[in-house]
Amino acid sequence: MVEHHTLSLKTSGNGHMHDITSQIESVIAQSSLSTGICTVFNVGSTATVGTIEFEPGLEQDLPELLNKYMPPSTEYGHEKQWHDGNGHSHLQATTMGPSITIPFEENSLKNGTWQQIFHLECDNKARNRTVTVTLIGE
Amino acid sequence: MVEHHTLSLKTSGNGHMHDITSQIESVIAQSSLSTGICTVFNVGSTATVGTIEFEPGLEQDLPELLNKYMPPSTEYGHEKQWHDGNGHSHLQATTMGPSITIPFEENSLKNGTWQQIFHLECDNKARNRTVTVTLIGE
Amino acid sequence: MVEHHTLSLKTSGNGHMHDITSQIESVIAQSSLSTGICTVFNVGSTATVGTIEFEPGLEQDLPELLNKYMPPSTEYGHEKQWHDGNGHSHLQATTMGPSITIPFEENSLKNGTWQQIFHLECDNKARNRTVTVTLIGE
Repeated sequence: MVEHHTLSLKTSGNGHMHDITSQIESVIAQSSLSTGICTVFNVGSTATVGTIEFEPGLEQDLPELLNKYMPPSTEYGHEKQWHDGNGHSHLQATTMGPSITIPFEENSLKNGTWQQIFHLECDNKARNRTVTVTLIGE
Repeated sequence: MVEHHTLSLKTSGNGHMHDITSQIESVIAQSSLSTGICTVFNVGSTATVGTIEFEPGLEQDLPELLNKYMPPSTEYGHEKQWHDGNGHSHLQATTMGPSITIPFEENSLKNGTWQQIFHLECDNKARNRTVTVTLIGE
Repeated sequence: MVEHHTLSLKTSGNGHMHDITSQIESVIAQSSLSTGICTVFNVGSTATVGTIEFEPGLEQDLPELLNKYMPPSTEYGHEKQWHDGNGHSHLQATTMGPSITIPFEENSLKNGTWQQIFHLECDNKARNRTVTVTLIGE
């Protein structure tokens, strides 16, 4: 059995993180599947999803890390081509990846207690985001 | 239902990117599944797959980024052991990851308009590559 | 069909790698599924899984690389909040990611000959780890 669900997020631009764990737990709780895997996919090429201990320290550290090694710069080939100021955003999102897959059982994610699912905006402006949550199982 | 398909690619060595989106769309269009998830997996330890806005600027920027932080070097433990010049290739491929999973519905990928699926060669020589495309769904 | 299995690992702290390929092959060989995808997921926010040519050189190189770009530091927001010395561990695990998905067929992984599945401890102390291996298929 397959179910596709959609989450909508409003972001404020580069470095804005959302904890989307409870929204995904709700999707699973309300679905007709009780066991399987859950694929969380960011639609678009300048944001990412992953897992983290979601707390204010790391919410600052992760975007800082990505901006340290992939800073805004006019030197990127992407900038020379498009001049839209978000070459670093593409590189951050591509290296972090667009999706994660997490097992669920008895209508609940099998993640760790301190392991939340985040969405991270990498683009250089506010965006409306679509995140697909696909459940495969029984 | 499960279907395994295989793509074959010829690469010219480190930094060579392929846009494999249309090949994967063809696999999905011709399959007996219309909805589910698609796992794209690079067989081998020195190449990677992911999503990106596939355009000439980023096609240059992504390999440059990986070579900046994981450059060729004789200092890697892998080099001291094997002397095959591709220690950086292994590190680039391992940190980027071997696979991505993307939802599909109505016989089509649920990716963004500017979000293509790429294959990136990280090895230091031309390679013939096998990429597995597995569809799970209905 | 869905099957969840669990692996237990003892790690010695930051940089300790396990080759878990044969354990996952055993899970697949003994399961009632012969074809599908296998999701390997680390439960917790300070370790990661991936694929690599598992040999002593890279077993040294990968942790060194992560510690070079994400070193222990009291400057992380996480440290200022929690003072537990593992801010770098969280960043390493989050950027590498918690899971990988690999196809299997005829009761065997479809990975490359020199492409093993690893678990890498990123935390700053010894840990008992749970890794979930979920099989989806037929």
